[in-house]
Amino acid sequence: MTDVVRITVSEATALLTAVFERAGASASVASCVSRALVAAESEGQIGHGFSRVADYVAQIRSGKINVDAKPILERRAPAALHVKAGHGFAYPALDVALQAGIPLAREMGVAVTTVGNSHHCGAMSIQVERIAEAGLIGVMVANAPKAIAPWGAKDAVFGTNPIAFATPVAKAPPLVIDLSLSIVARGKVMAAHKAGKSIPEGWALDRAGRSTTDAASALEGSMLPIGEAKGTALALMVEILAAALSGSAFSRDAGSFFTADGDLPNVGQTLIAIHPGGGTEFGERISDLLGYIASLEGARLPGDRRRKSIELAKSNGLSVPVHLFNQALHLAGELPQQTLQSGV
Amino acid sequence: MTDVVRITVSEATALLTAVFERAGASASVASCVSRALVAAESEGQIGHGFSRVADYVAQIRSGKINVDAKPILERRAPAALHVKAGHGFAYPALDVALQAGIPLAREMGVAVTTVGNSHHCGAMSIQVERIAEAGLIGVMVANAPKAIAPWGAKDAVFGTNPIAFATPVAKAPPLVIDLSLSIVARGKVMAAHKAGKSIPEGWALDRAGRSTTDAASALEGSMLPIGEAKGTALALMVEILAAALSGSAFSRDAGSFFTADGDLPNVGQTLIAIHPGGGTEFGERISDLLGYIASLEGARLPGDRRRKSIELAKSNGLSVPVHLFNQALHLAGELPQQTLQSGV
Repeated sequence: MTDVVRITVSEATALLTAVFERAGASASVASCVSRALVAAESEGQIGHGFSRVADYVAQIRSGKINVDAKPILERRAPAALHVKAGHGFAYPALDVALQAGIPLAREMGVAVTTVGNSHHCGAMSIQVERIAEAGLIGVMVANAPKAIAPWGAKDAVFGTNPIAFATPVAKAPPLVIDLSLSIVARGKVMAAHKAGKSIPEGWALDRAGRSTTDAASALEGSMLPIGEAKGTALALMVEILAAALSGSAFSRDAGSFFTADGDLPNVGQTLIAIHPGGGTEFGERISDLLGYIASLEGARLPGDRRRKSIELAKSNGLSVPVHLFNQALHLAGELPQQTLQSGV
Repeated sequence: MTDVVRITVSEATALLTAVFERAGASASVASCVSRALVAAESEGQIGHGFSRVADYVAQIRSGKINVDAKPILERRAPAALHVKAGHGFAYPALDVALQAGIPLAREMGVAVTTVGNSHHCGAMSIQVERIAEAGLIGVMVANAPKAIAPWGAKDAVFGTNPIAFATPVAKAPPLVIDLSLSIVARGKVMAAHKAGKSIPEGWALDRAGRSTTDAASALEGSMLPIGEAKGTALALMVEILAAALSGSAFSRDAGSFFTADGDLPNVGQTLIAIHPGGGTEFGERISDLLGYIASLEGARLPGDRRRKSIELAKSNGLSVPVHLFNQALHLAGELPQQTLQSGV
């Protein structure tokens, strides 16, 4: 097992805020990005947490992330908004998108908000959950650098192009769904690569279109989609909704989220918020449905593992791999400490 | 091979219109339903074409389809519409939804239209294509009688809950995607069952949760979802967007589309139309992307097979299985004719 450091959520957030401030981000941007990464780490999406910190800093330094970008909000139609992320971090632009999109959806019944010229948006669960916490249904899609080949071809064209969804539930936290259209998220392959581990058969193909268990070959090749041709059809749908609708680069032209050099990612995100109508019946019916599913032997409810992970992070703190923790300390300008509690 | 009868699209539409008028539908409802079934048959979705005719007629007779229902349109919010299908056919209600939803989306930037207390909506490709032909992006979801179990469980809870998508493409017909969240559409199992054929391994489980190749056992059991737990998460998302948002029955409470007796289907459909903004750039970028994909060796573009099937139906007519054709003739009050051209 990897040695880990146990730190609280607020310690982690403070540490990463210091990292991004030292890299040149304003206090508000640094805080926003740190909260997003720590929230992803808390819910167990380790591909969108501490493992991204060094890459983000390197991209600020190289100019691949415009740390001074100010998200610009435009109203394109009565129920349609657009946020220009200006090649800065996605998270502050998503904050603007939600702050404007949620009240607009409440007023109009539905609102679509696109975020263009954006960057890695991490765990989308966090964004759609905020929509559901405001009493609305949230749907979010994003494109990402190319990773999935059209069915039958070997060249990657689509990102893993995730879809997230959240809905209010009566007397309970929102139901949250967040999934990529590859069999596993590319972040998991990246994490395996960084940890020097192999990946299971059936996750990815190498650049020649052959099955591979080598993480590096998988990153050069393509990720296998769920449902074969159906998964690539859904990836194409997300590509159009996220990239084309937001005026951003298609996945095949999007620069890497992982390297400091090369093309800008310039990806897009689209959020749809829908008001479920007046009264409490909607949330109660969702509650009934989820209760029924939970009563079935062996049934797995989406979001259960996520919620347990968040609760564990709140009560016991985060378990951050030592090398990532020390890296963050270093980037924050502090020396790695020998006195930190470490565990499995 | 099954013996087939070759008839033109307009002959098929006239025949089915006669069937539904004889069963008690008004001329406009009969025509609307016939066009939807023939369009599905034309595009190769045989599970949503002639194979449904006898069941529809039986359900009109039993009162499971209220053939006199008049779809009622309500504006629930500035950009949100609802159509009460009144337990009639889905197709006339979907016509009302599109006629109102398309101009509203053009005005507001986006519109969400729910259709509640509805019935089998057939090939959703046809509905979203109409949205894209009007210059908008169309997304449609529907729930259906229970067919898919939550991941890990053996009891079916979700319908095969299809997702359809269409977008305008510059100087070309719309791109159309239409897929169910089961590995194959349940209609294919139903068609196999009606034809007395077995189904391939990997499509479905029997009621005890074991893999089966027997179509009857599969219809009593559950359909396997794409992407394992990811597919069931998407099915849950569709369930909430289609059934809960439209105030319709969840799939587990929806009566069968195939039997004349039992509970009403009472399912829901939700359509989202999005204006892609001014100018021609959006459609041109989609055209470029599709052109690039088509240039890749081995790549399969969603909708290609559908378009070829529609072109073939237009030029050569439909190849309808003899038993379904004779059934339709009988239901139209005509005797089966011995003189019809038949082929493979």
